[in-house]
Formats: sequence, C-alpha cells, structure tokens
Amino acid sequence: MQQKSSATGKVWSGRFSEPVAELVKRYTASVEFDQRLAEFDIQGSLAHASMLESCGIIAADDLASIRKGLAQILDEIRAGQFEWLLDLEDVHLNIEKRLTALIGEAGKRLHTARSRNDQVATDVRLWLRASIDELLALIKGLQLALLDLAEQHVDTVMPGFTHLQVAQPVTFGHHLMAYFEMLKRDAERMRDCRTRVNRLPLGAAALAGTSFPIDREMVARELGFDGVCENSLDAVSDRDFAIEFTAAAALIMTHLSRLSEELILWMSPRVGFIDIADRFCTGSSIMPQKKNPDVPELVRGKTARVTGHLMALLTLMKSQPLAYNKDNQEDKEPLFDTVDTLTATLRIYADMMGGITVNKEAMRQAAFQGYATATDLADYLVKKGLPFRDAHEVVALAVRHAEGKRCDLSELSLDKLLEFSPLITDDVFAVLTLEGSLNSRNHIGGTAPQQVRSAIQRGRKFIETL
Amino acid sequence: MQQKSSATGKVWSGRFSEPVAELVKRYTASVEFDQRLAEFDIQGSLAHASMLESCGIIAADDLASIRKGLAQILDEIRAGQFEWLLDLEDVHLNIEKRLTALIGEAGKRLHTARSRNDQVATDVRLWLRASIDELLALIKGLQLALLDLAEQHVDTVMPGFTHLQVAQPVTFGHHLMAYFEMLKRDAERMRDCRTRVNRLPLGAAALAGTSFPIDREMVARELGFDGVCENSLDAVSDRDFAIEFTAAAALIMTHLSRLSEELILWMSPRVGFIDIADRFCTGSSIMPQKKNPDVPELVRGKTARVTGHLMALLTLMKSQPLAYNKDNQEDKEPLFDTVDTLTATLRIYADMMGGITVNKEAMRQAAFQGYATATDLADYLVKKGLPFRDAHEVVALAVRHAEGKRCDLSELSLDKLLEFSPLITDDVFAVLTLEGSLNSRNHIGGTAPQQVRSAIQRGRKFIETL
Amino acid sequence: MQQKSSATGKVWSGRFSEPVAELVKRYTASVEFDQRLAEFDIQGSLAHASMLESCGIIAADDLASIRKGLAQILDEIRAGQFEWLLDLEDVHLNIEKRLTALIGEAGKRLHTARSRNDQVATDVRLWLRASIDELLALIKGLQLALLDLAEQHVDTVMPGFTHLQVAQPVTFGHHLMAYFEMLKRDAERMRDCRTRVNRLPLGAAALAGTSFPIDREMVARELGFDGVCENSLDAVSDRDFAIEFTAAAALIMTHLSRLSEELILWMSPRVGFIDIADRFCTGSSIMPQKKNPDVPELVRGKTARVTGHLMALLTLMKSQPLAYNKDNQEDKEPLFDTVDTLTATLRIYADMMGGITVNKEAMRQAAFQGYATATDLADYLVKKGLPFRDAHEVVALAVRHAEGKRCDLSELSLDKLLEFSPLITDDVFAVLTLEGSLNSRNHIGGTAPQQVRSAIQRGRKFIETL
Amino acid sequence: MQQKSSATGKVWSGRFSEPVAELVKRYTASVEFDQRLAEFDIQGSLAHASMLESCGIIAADDLASIRKGLAQILDEIRAGQFEWLLDLEDVHLNIEKRLTALIGEAGKRLHTARSRNDQVATDVRLWLRASIDELLALIKGLQLALLDLAEQHVDTVMPGFTHLQVAQPVTFGHHLMAYFEMLKRDAERMRDCRTRVNRLPLGAAALAGTSFPIDREMVARELGFDGVCENSLDAVSDRDFAIEFTAAAALIMTHLSRLSEELILWMSPRVGFIDIADRFCTGSSIMPQKKNPDVPELVRGKTARVTGHLMALLTLMKSQPLAYNKDNQEDKEPLFDTVDTLTATLRIYADMMGGITVNKEAMRQAAFQGYATATDLADYLVKKGLPFRDAHEVVALAVRHAEGKRCDLSELSLDKLLEFSPLITDDVFAVLTLEGSLNSRNHIGGTAPQQVRSAIQRGRKFIETL
Repeated sequence: MQQKSSATGKVWSGRFSEPVAELVKRYTASVEFDQRLAEFDIQGSLAHASMLESCGIIAADDLASIRKGLAQILDEIRAGQFEWLLDLEDVHLNIEKRLTALIGEAGKRLHTARSRNDQVATDVRLWLRASIDELLALIKGLQLALLDLAEQHVDTVMPGFTHLQVAQPVTFGHHLMAYFEMLKRDAERMRDCRTRVNRLPLGAAALAGTSFPIDREMVARELGFDGVCENSLDAVSDRDFAIEFTAAAALIMTHLSRLSEELILWMSPRVGFIDIADRFCTGSSIMPQKKNPDVPELVRGKTARVTGHLMALLTLMKSQPLAYNKDNQEDKEPLFDTVDTLTATLRIYADMMGGITVNKEAMRQAAFQGYATATDLADYLVKKGLPFRDAHEVVALAVRHAEGKRCDLSELSLDKLLEFSPLITDDVFAVLTLEGSLNSRNHIGGTAPQQVRSAIQRGRKFIETL
Repeated sequence: MQQKSSATGKVWSGRFSEPVAELVKRYTASVEFDQRLAEFDIQGSLAHASMLESCGIIAADDLASIRKGLAQILDEIRAGQFEWLLDLEDVHLNIEKRLTALIGEAGKRLHTARSRNDQVATDVRLWLRASIDELLALIKGLQLALLDLAEQHVDTVMPGFTHLQVAQPVTFGHHLMAYFEMLKRDAERMRDCRTRVNRLPLGAAALAGTSFPIDREMVARELGFDGVCENSLDAVSDRDFAIEFTAAAALIMTHLSRLSEELILWMSPRVGFIDIADRFCTGSSIMPQKKNPDVPELVRGKTARVTGHLMALLTLMKSQPLAYNKDNQEDKEPLFDTVDTLTATLRIYADMMGGITVNKEAMRQAAFQGYATATDLADYLVKKGLPFRDAHEVVALAVRHAEGKRCDLSELSLDKLLEFSPLITDDVFAVLTLEGSLNSRNHIGGTAPQQVRSAIQRGRKFIETL
Repeated sequence: MQQKSSATGKVWSGRFSEPVAELVKRYTASVEFDQRLAEFDIQGSLAHASMLESCGIIAADDLASIRKGLAQILDEIRAGQFEWLLDLEDVHLNIEKRLTALIGEAGKRLHTARSRNDQVATDVRLWLRASIDELLALIKGLQLALLDLAEQHVDTVMPGFTHLQVAQPVTFGHHLMAYFEMLKRDAERMRDCRTRVNRLPLGAAALAGTSFPIDREMVARELGFDGVCENSLDAVSDRDFAIEFTAAAALIMTHLSRLSEELILWMSPRVGFIDIADRFCTGSSIMPQKKNPDVPELVRGKTARVTGHLMALLTLMKSQPLAYNKDNQEDKEPLFDTVDTLTATLRIYADMMGGITVNKEAMRQAAFQGYATATDLADYLVKKGLPFRDAHEVVALAVRHAEGKRCDLSELSLDKLLEFSPLITDDVFAVLTLEGSLNSRNHIGGTAPQQVRSAIQRGRKFIETL
Repeated sequence: MQQKSSATGKVWSGRFSEPVAELVKRYTASVEFDQRLAEFDIQGSLAHASMLESCGIIAADDLASIRKGLAQILDEIRAGQFEWLLDLEDVHLNIEKRLTALIGEAGKRLHTARSRNDQVATDVRLWLRASIDELLALIKGLQLALLDLAEQHVDTVMPGFTHLQVAQPVTFGHHLMAYFEMLKRDAERMRDCRTRVNRLPLGAAALAGTSFPIDREMVARELGFDGVCENSLDAVSDRDFAIEFTAAAALIMTHLSRLSEELILWMSPRVGFIDIADRFCTGSSIMPQKKNPDVPELVRGKTARVTGHLMALLTLMKSQPLAYNKDNQEDKEPLFDTVDTLTATLRIYADMMGGITVNKEAMRQAAFQGYATATDLADYLVKKGLPFRDAHEVVALAVRHAEGKRCDLSELSLDKLLEFSPLITDDVFAVLTLEGSLNSRNHIGGTAPQQVRSAIQRGRKFIETL
C-alpha cells in the first residue's frame, strides 16, 4: 500500500516526480494577496461542512471538529498569529493544512465535494459582496456631503461653463447636484452588479459538479446568496462579476475625476472660487508659499489606475477556453486594488467636501465675464415674437458690439439695444440680471433655486434607500 | 437694424469676424457619422414641437408646418435624397436648415427652448435604446441556437478541460449551456443598462434649463422615456450610458471570444471535435487545401476592438469639467461601431451554430486521454471511508503508475488497484466509466444529462422573457 | 481534367462545397477599408514580378504584361474608375482579378511564390513607412510654429504652475519650448519605429517560405527596405510595427492633449491669457455669445480614441498562436484611423499656433497672484548663509503673514521682513521682482530669456535634421 | 525672529494652519512604494552635493558630512534597519530627515537648488535605467535558451499552422526562431528606450530651474547620463520614459503570451507535442491526475496586467496641464509592477525552455493531418508550366477528392492524380514528402534546416551584442 504523502507536502503532489522550482513557487503562489479572503474562506467552509453533514457526506462529529478548528483558525488570523506559508500556495491550502494539523482526519474530509476552483470563486464573491455593501454606504456618505454643501449654496450664483467658456448663470448648489446625480446612477449600478455577484458557485467542484449528493441551495441560503450558478463550467470560469464591478468602479472614479478637475481649477488663484482646508493639502519642498490640492489630483490620477485594472481584467478573460485556467488567478490583484482605491477615495472625498470654503464674490464676478445672459436676451426676443433663430443672430451681433466696447450687454443703453432689435423695451434689463436668468429656469432639472431645493429634497429621500 | 445673417451661413456666426477654416470644418464636423441619428433627431423634434405648442410657446400652425416639413425630410432621408452638407456641421443643423428652407419662419422657431447639447444627448439615447432592443432580440436568437444544439448533445460525452488538460467528462450539451448562462447575464446587464439609457435629457437646454415654461414630462411620455434627467448640467454632459453600454458589449464580445477560441481549437485537425460548414469558412490564396474558421477568428479580433472602444470612452470622460465640452463628440464613433460590431457578430454567430457538425467519436476518444475519471475514483474511496485528502493521494499514485504503463485507470487490474488501496472492490469499474462519471454529477449545475435537460428547459423559459 | 473554376469565382474555392454566406462575406471582407493600400499593393507586386523574372520564375513577356496591366489598374484607381467588389474580399484579390481580366495568363502567374499573408504585411509596411515620413514632416511643421511663437515671447512673463497653483515666474516662450521638447522625443521615437517598420516580409509566403528560388534582398532593395524579416513565421504574424507605431502616436496625442488642456484653460475668461482666432473656434446653437475652443477640445477627445486603438491592437495580438490568424485583419482599421487622426491633428495644430493672440498683461498680473518669488527669497537667504531647509521655513512664515495681509512679499516693508530673518537687507527687493527671478535661472534648461533664446536656436538646428 | 519649525514637522508646513488629516496622509504618501528608489536617491544626492560644492554653493566640509551621512543611511537601508515613516511622505524626505538628524546643518543644505520634482524624476530614471540593463540580460538569457532548443530541433518536423489549421510543414527549430526574432526587436526597442530614459532632469528644480549657479552637465557625467533634459518644465512633468518603457514591456509580454498559448496547446493531451517538466507545473486539489502548465497560463494572464498598466499610464498623463501635478505620483506603482512582472517572467521562461520535452513522433504525425504539402503540389505544377492560379485550383480539387477518400495526397495513385492534371509525372511523390517540402524552402527566412542553422548562427552573434 503506497499511501504516504509525497516528499514535497503538496496536496496534489503524488503524481509528480520532482518538486516545484523555487521561482515557480513564487510565480504561481497567491497567498501573499489572497490572504485577505481568509474570513470569507472560513465562512464558506463552514457552510459547506454543514451541508456535507446535513446530506450525510460527513459525520456529525467531523462537522463539530471542523467548526472548532475553523473557529480557532479565525482567531489566529484575527490576532495576526496565523503563519502563512508560500509553500502552501494560497489561502485555501494554508487554512486546510492548519485545520488538519489541529483536528486531524476530519480536516482531510472538508475538501470533499469541492475544488479550489469553486471555492475561490465563492470566496471572492462573498468578499466582493461585503465590499459593495461598504461602498454603497460610502457613496451615501459622499452624497450626503454634497447635499449639505448644495443646501448652503442653493442660490450662490456662479457662471455655468460649457467648453470652459462662460455659458449661463447657474447656482453652485445646482452644480454640486450634478455630481449627486452621477453618484445616484453609480449606486444603482452597484446594486445591479450586486445581484449578479450574489450567486453561489460552490458545488461546481472542479468544473463538472460532484458525484456526492450535495444540496447547493442549502449552502446558498446559509451564505445569503440569492441563487446558485446554474452551470458548473461557467461557475468556475466566470469572472463577469469582477469585470462588471470594476467597470462600475471606473465610472465612479471618472465622475470623481471630473469633480477633482473642477476643484483644482476652482482653487487655482486665477479662478479663486474655492479654497480647500489645509488638512487636505500639502506643500512644496522647495517653494515655501505653495499649498497644493493633492487629494483631487491623486483622485484624477487614481482614476487612470482603476481604468487600467478594468482593461487588465477584460484582456485577461478574452479568448480563454473553458473552464478554469490559471490566468484567472490574475483577477485578484486588480480587483482588490480597485476596491481599496475606491474605498479610500470615497471616504476622503466625503470628508473633503466639508473642508471647502466658497468665495461667493469671485463666483459672482466671474459670471459677468462672458455675457452669461445673452441667451436670456434671445429668449426675451422670442417671447416678443421673433423666431429663435433670428433672435440668436440679433444677440450675436449685440454681443460682438459689446465686446468691442468691453462692456456687458446690460451696460448697453436702451437706444443702442434698439439698434439691434426694435422689439426691445425697458423690461429687458430685468432679464439681463443674473438672478433674473437663474429664476427663469424654473422647471425640473433647471437651475432656479426653487428647483435646486426640490432636487435636494428628492436627493435626501433617495439616500434613505441606500 | 442689423438682422441679416452673416456671410458664412452658420447659425452661430453673428459673433464671429472670420469664417471657420476649411481644415477646422472637417475636423469638427460630425455630419458624416451622426447622420445615422437622423430619424431619432426628427422623432425628438416632433415631440419637442408638440410640447412647445401645448405649452403655448409656439403657435398651432407653426406646429403643423413643422410636422409637415419634418415628414418630408424623413421621406427624403429614407429615399436617400437628402443632401448632407459638411458646412452645416451636424445632423441637427442639416435638418433644421432644410426645415427652414421648406417651411420658413416656423422652422426657425423649432430650436426654441433647446440646445444641441440636450438635443444630441436625446438623439443618442433614443438610438441606443432602439439598438439595445434589437440586441436583446439577437441575444435571444443566439441563445436559442445554443439551446437547440445543446439539446442534440445532452449526452454527447467530451472531455471537460481545465488548463487545457483533461479534467473530467462532461457532455457537449453541458458545455454549450455554459455559454447560455453567460448570455443570460449579458441580457440582464443590457436590460439594466436600458433603464439608465431611457431617461430624457431634453429640457436641459445648453446646461441650465430654459426660461420657457416647458413640460419635460410630456416630452418624456411622448418619446417613451422612463423619466427625465433631473439635473440639467448632468443631463448635457453625462455619457455614462454610452460607457455602461460599451462595457456590457465588451463582456458579450469577451464571452463570444471564448467560444470562438474553442471552436477554432475544436476544428484544428489535431483535436477534430467539430467541423464548421463551408459557408462560414474561407480558403487560402496560396494553400489549396485550407479551410479556415475565419468567423470565430474575427470575433476574437473584434473583441479587442470593442475593448478598445471602452478604453476610449472612459479616457474621453476622465477629468472633463462640467458641463458639455466638445470632447464629447468623440463618443459617437466608438459607440456606433460597438453597436455595429456586436449586432453583426451576434447575428452571424446564431447562424453559425447551426452549421456546426460534431464528431462524437473524436470527443469520446479524447475523454480517454487524461484519466478523466480519476476524481471519481477518489470520490469512490471517500464513500468507502477514506478522508478525501488521503483518497486524492492514493489516486495520484495510481495515475502515476498507469501513466508509466501508458494505460487508463480502468485498464488496471483489480489486483493492481488493490496495491493502492485495500478499499477497492469490483464495483470500482462502473465508477471509472465515462457514463458512470457523467451520471453521478446529478445536482443543479452538474453535467449529468438529466440536469442538462432541466437546464435547457429553464433556458427556454428564460428566453421567452426577452 | 477538372480544371474549370468553381461557381463562386473565389480564388480558393475549389475545395469548398458551398459558397460563403452573404453575412460572412460582409463580415470577413476587408476591401472597404484596405483599398487605401492599393498603390502600395501595386508597388509591391511590381517589385515581386521583377524579381520573379530576374530569378527565372516567370518569363520576360509575362513581366512586361504584368507591368502594363498594373500601370493601367493604377490609372483606373487614381481616376476613381476602378470597381471594387466585396465578393473579391480584399484589395489584393480585386487587383489580381482585374489584372487577369486585362492580361490573361500572366496575371495568374503573379501570385507565384507569395501569399496574401506576406503580401498584406508588405503593403501595410510600405504604407506605414510613407505615413511616418509624412508625419515627421508634420511634426517638424508644428515644431516650427512653436519655435516662432516662442521667439516672440522669449521674455513674456507668466506664472509657472505646479498643481495649477502659482509656483515661479517663467516666460511664455520657455513654456512653449517644453512642448517642443516633447515633440522632439516624438520625432526620435518615430524614426526608431521606422527602422523596424522598414523590413521586408515578402518571401515568407504563407508562413514557411516558398519552394521557388526567390531573391528577397533584391525585392527589399527595389522597395527601399532596410532588410528582410529573417523568419517566415514571424514575418507573416508580426504586428509589432503597428503596435509600436500606435504607442508612439498615442504619446504624441497625449502631448497635444496637454497643450490643448492649457489652451482651453488659458482662453477661459477667468484666466484670459490667450485668444484663439475665430477661424479655429465655433459657436453655440443656443447661446449667441459663445466662442468655443473646439479644436483643442477635440484633440483632447481624439487622444482617447488613439489610446483606445492601442488597447485594441495589444489585446488583438495577445495569446495568438503562430502563424497568421484572421484576427490580424483587425489591425487595419485602428492603425489607419490612428494615422488619419494624427495627421489631421498635427496639421491643424501647426496652423492654430499661428492664430493665438497673447494677453501679456493678464499673464503678468497672474504672476503676482501666488507669491511666485517666494523661492527666490529662500534662495536669497541661503546665499546669505542660512541652510536651505531653514530658509524655506522662514519664507513659509513670511508668506503666511503676507497672505493674512492680502499683499505680495515685495509689498512687505524691510522692517517687517526683518522680523522673519535678520539676514535680509535692502537688496532683497530686486530679488523679489519677476524679472529678477526669471533672469536668475540662467543655466541650461532654465527659464532665463537668454537660455530660452539658446534653446530656440538649438531647436531650429534640430528640425533641420527632420 | 520666527524661525522655529511648525508643530507638524513637515518640511513645508510653515505656511499651513492645521496638520494634514490622517486619511490624507495615507492617501498622499508614497513612501510605502517609493522606498525601492532609496539607493538611487542617495546616488543622485551624492552627485548633486558634489556639484554644489564644486560650484561653490556649499562648503567642502558640508559635502564631506553629507557623504558620510548618506553612506551611513545606505548601510542602514541595506541592513533593513532604516525606519521609514509615513509622516515623512516619501523616500526623499525620509532620507533627508535622517541625514539632518545624523549630520545637522549640512543636511539642511542638501536640498539647495533642487526640488522633489526633479529629484524624483532623476531617481526613477536611474532606477529604470538599471532595470532596463537587467532586463536586457534576461532577454539575452531567454534568447539563448531558444537558440539552444532550436539547435536541437533544426530538422524536427512539425505542422506549421495558420488559423490553427495545418498549413505547411516547418521545423520546430524554425518555429522557435520566430520567437527569437520577436525578442530581438524587443531588445532593440529597450535599447532605444534606454537612450530616452538616460537624460538628467536634475537642475530643473521645481519647474523653472534655479537661481544658483549649478552645473548640470557635471551631474549628468557623474551619474552616467547621456545628456540633460533641455527644458525645465518638461523635465519635471515628463513621464514619456515610463510610458515608452511600459509599451515596450507590454509587447514583450504579448510575445510571451503567444508562446505561452502555444505551449499550453502543445501540452494538451489531444495535441501532445511537448511535455513541460514537473517542476514548472502544479496539480489540482481535487483531480489527482492533473498536471497543469501554470507558468505559461500565468504569463498569458500577466500580459493583461502589463497592458492594463500601460493604459493607466497613458490615461494618467492625458490632459495634464504643465508642469508637475500630483497625478504623476501614480506613475510609480504601474511602472514598478511592470518591471517586476517582466523580470520574473523572463527569468522563469528561460529556465522553463530547458524543461521542455519534445514528442517528435506526435509532431510528425500531426503534419500528415491536413494536406500540408498541397502547396508543394501547386508549386510543382507551376514549375511544369501551369499558371499559379490554375495550379491552385487543380490542387484544391485533388484535396477535395482525397478528403472524400480520407487519404493523403501522397496516397493517391499517379493515375488518379493525372485526372487532375496531365502535367503530373512520377517525380511528384518526392515533392509530396515532408522533407521534400521543408528542404525546398531554402532562402533566407525559409524553414529549410540549412536556413534555420544559419539563423541560429546569426542569432548567436546578435546576442553577443547585448
């Protein structure tokens, strides 16, 4: 009887005639980064063992031993006392080996009716589900910070820009609420993604299912999954959930990169719309006067990082034949780093919004630098009967004239305005004010302070659902 | 009164002192590619005009003229008689200009209370919504082709691979159903994406809303949108919907790239599992014997193309300040090409699945090249009482022995097997057959023919919902 | 004797039992986009035919016929009279078929000792080589425009920014020369890339070389290649040259995206450093006052497009087994579009630099908004003996004080300055001027006008080498 | 006199009224990953200090102290005794602070005439230059392994594939030499890249140069740079070198992903061309018989990772205004990981090539499965006078016939062959052998063993230049 384990101590080594080369061990091992799955690995193993016992595949006392052993391992890990060995490749084998050391035979029964292929997929899904839940809370936190700041600036006037040219007056509150909307879609996407993450691969075993009479729905219930993956080959090779999540994450970062770009612009002395509290800025090693908006700059930079991860994941999966291939192990680092980056970014952003000081006067002054109410004049003419296209042309010429005079439209005399259109009367000057312009955009989605207030109210309701 | 239009004929040129340079015209114009939005542009304009009239912003006879004019333009476009002019920049101005030529003053009133910023966003969303609906039908078509082929091969045995090494027997039907599952998630994602596409930006005007008393919900209802974009700045600058769609499309292509990789492998003479009908293949200009699987190869290649488009769109939006910037115009070509590529690929794939001939004998032979039932032997030992980890080691040694003898496990004598474990008895040989292995994986998601049949039934139900 | 051609008319169809499906024809054909290779295809065929004749593989009169026929085809193509047929798949077969129609038998001999695999690789390399040469001329043109503008602004002072905060004074000429440097590296990269593009694949035939006694060096000489691809399998499957080129192109676009970002910022009314001539801008359909910097915005957007193409090409080639696979056909559209985008962008940019008006006063004013000479004060203290780290701290406190007083450092009295350091004397005020600061940075690479002048001179010499 | 350092201990904090938030510290600090630059930071500081002394900016005894202090710090770092503090942000300030602790005042003088902006750019370039040199040696090592294996298989026949269909016979040596060619281009690209990496940014200071009379060429000489960056704004903000390097790295990985794909295919039991030594493979936790080619699978996967890094870097730099922005800090992790991944991959690959066992018989058998010599028959007919296009059609029909008979062309009788063309005589059978086909492709780049031998000789000469 040739039952002794092979010299190398690998769980799969009986078939091999030489040990794995050192370089290869390091190249193929994942334990350095998949350790973070440990708690979820244990959680999955507990549910698996319960099911095995419930289905008569292992004995009740084996289950008891497994529970005891895993509880101890969990303690060891939490206490930082667990010894992770590169030789044991990954989080799964490190834990299983320790379990067998602690409880003997029963430990060797735990891997019945499963494979690392379905085990790791289960671990990652459990971990990602928890991460999504945390991220949803962080999105909510940032949305709250935006709502609070917007509320303070419901009628703070600033120039709305298109093409970085002054377009029309908006309120700063309205501007901030644009980001609220983006994050609302982000939250929706995260929730949609969560439903696809939350399906159980365990039971797919290596790729074909198992010959043991398992009960996958029981495991799914125990672990809080919404359902089971319905094809074993797909279950072990699918990484859609990682890609869909990373795509959603890249969009969140892209949104924050836009806000970051604006914060940086607004804090540039030439613009001077805001200041960011010192605690979110750093200085220069050479220039004593510098105060730099490092955080939004890094957010902009880290957006590139997450986009890179998405590209890595998509490229990783392209053209892989079924079922599991080792390539898939490369899904973890980009996914983990995406979660870490997004978590830190959302957290710091919510804080930073509270550290923004607004220079209302600078914003107001800027709204006068670019004929922000020209459209209002055109609309005024339309209301007096001119077709819009003609009104547009009339105002364009008026602007050209005013620009030559280096003055605003509102500074032209009525007589001068009449040269451009006989429809203009004295009431035009009310239309040409910033407040007149703002208040007139009074429909859902418009910048009128009344609308912004409603939007904030709707926003507060929405985040209660998160 | 200086109302005459400027020499250049641009709708916005009154303010400009020189015409746009020729190079710039070509560089900035979009009419060559945004023509395809024409029908949706007209659809949007009709709803906008109805609302303008209903809200008292334009007169009833203006509306009537606009309807008549747009109907004629639609006819001209469908008949290929519409003259698109580069000088008129884009689809919107080409149509508006023609409208004014046809109906005069009323045409100049159509652009009241809107901007090209909200107009183009509306057009693209209408177009993309229609595209998604068509794609969902094409996904359904491909799923149906997979179900039909899977049904024919519910018990056709083939080796299941992991790492391209023979792992365990599966049925070809089960293997095909893995792709059904992927497409099911794809359909779900497309539907989720559709809900976010299907919101109305119109009414945001340039970026701040409009001073006219518009009714956005009315327009939304008329155009079949689920709701309105609730922030005007966001409405004109948001391209999330294009990115989310392209990410979902990249995943579909990635799935098909995997199937393509397999078809190519399977048709390689050394593997010889399938043949693809001549009508889906091409030959060589130099090698007279060649028959090449061009379609799956191109699908693999076009997956890269769509992933590239996703990269382009994400990079495009990164760090853009609010609101609309001209960068956004670059969203169209990648998005259009993504839809075209995906549409053609899904369509051709559904056809091609019907042109696949399966060489069952080759598949069966291959299942014997790699100890596919070794796991079954281990499971057998577990059922006889050995802990799984020990059973695994026993079988590893048996495989190593059989490999030395260049024979299958089932070809070892009972006496020889007993050298590896005393638990083995005569009943082991049933376990070591391909059919024994297949039938034993009889739980949801497993490869047992009975399970595959159920999966196909569930699949047929699912596609009825598409 | 069964020599008649098959019904479908394909050059490779004798082996096939059914014609290619219509969908497949459209999906696999490349003639719609590879037409643009026509002149290079003919050029390659002429060299190939000369060599065949010179090596005794075809007769002299066959060569004469081929030359005559190809000359006529070239005329037809240039005149727009050549009829491109989708049924003939690609540029190669369209031309060969027409050749045979024109000259009979001799046309059928042209494809001796070659395959489309090596033919298309040759065509693309010839085309790309010509494109690179044109791009180098365009880079030179843009560099010249930068040198000319820089020369006008050798001593125009502006704030140098880091983190978009005012850092130290620089000259606008110096700032522009940073882009000159980037383009210099770009030109170097293009030249390096050209040497790897410029190798001849022809003679590799399908993948293994040919049994005819060909002379590849002769063909290389005739076509101006620097050498031959030395492995036939590599020759037909290599697409490095396309990837390396696209990577270099993406970097050029990235450089221009940075300059574009700055032009947009500088033209924003709040900054107001420059104006871009009307002929490079467009207006708004709704806002009559708008003048938008569309060109730089599109350049920013098109950078994303080229980066996407690079992603597509890298993903395309990943994990392809040797040798040629149909996936490779997907290299063309991204490559062609990259060249087109880059060509148009460089051309328009060189023009646009001549349309920039500088507001020197605004630049100068801005240099006062951020303590731009604070480092000069620190350096001053170091020169008086204080260690730099201490000097930095002294100035930081002085800045903090001045900021509280809302004044510049140079506006503090000597007495006040002495409170921060006893080392300060009357000569400090010269140091605190913008010109003092500029002129002191007088080493290679520094912003002193004298250095900028030298840099411009070196630049003019460099572009003579292009 | 207010010279005391601020409470926070930051080198730049005198200007700040509150300390940096804890979250922000962690978010902005780079010391965790830029530690690896330490030796190069010291090397750069030593050259900088020498120059400062030589130019009379610091005293000789200051230089002596700095040298002594930095030597001690280098020892501490190498011994793992250096205490890295997150509070000190980065590698530069950690070292400078320690230096000042060790040597006092002189330490505070080291940062004279430089900024972290030019310092970090210098450090990264020094580090990357060393990395490139190491990578070139590793490329050489892998090329050598390929040459050695190719030499053993100069005349080992295998089927050459296009589209994974059997195309023409090649030798395994010839096939391996295709990868040699790819790596040759890779080495060329790395050397080209090295020349652009090897330029000195130091002296650019923050962005504008410095007011001290520095000698940049001296520093460049001392550090072995080929020249200085000639524009200070460009010097501190340029990350081209990182992008160009990563693009070159992505291409190397892409080449290895192709070889990996082939190794995996070749080791699949159905193909069975090679075996990879056990020490480069791993097993399965569930399937006792498995031996998986993990290394090439991971190489394929890691190719995606490096491509992702390239995308991150390009996106990072897009649209950044000059000069240095904090975004740039995000260049390090992708760059470092690219070097690490590439280094490990090249090293393991060179080893693994020595662990490949070739199954010559399987390769030979496979060459008979697909009419590999059909082109030879066509060429034979051409040599007998038939135009190639007609010969191609004749052979296509013969292949179709043979396929119906399930036999090879060489198994058809002369009588049968005569039915396809009267030109065929008895000498045809020599042409239809694998060796006949191989030997006939006897020109540079062809697969004839004689040519492969020459290619190997040229290869050995090339790698001597590395």
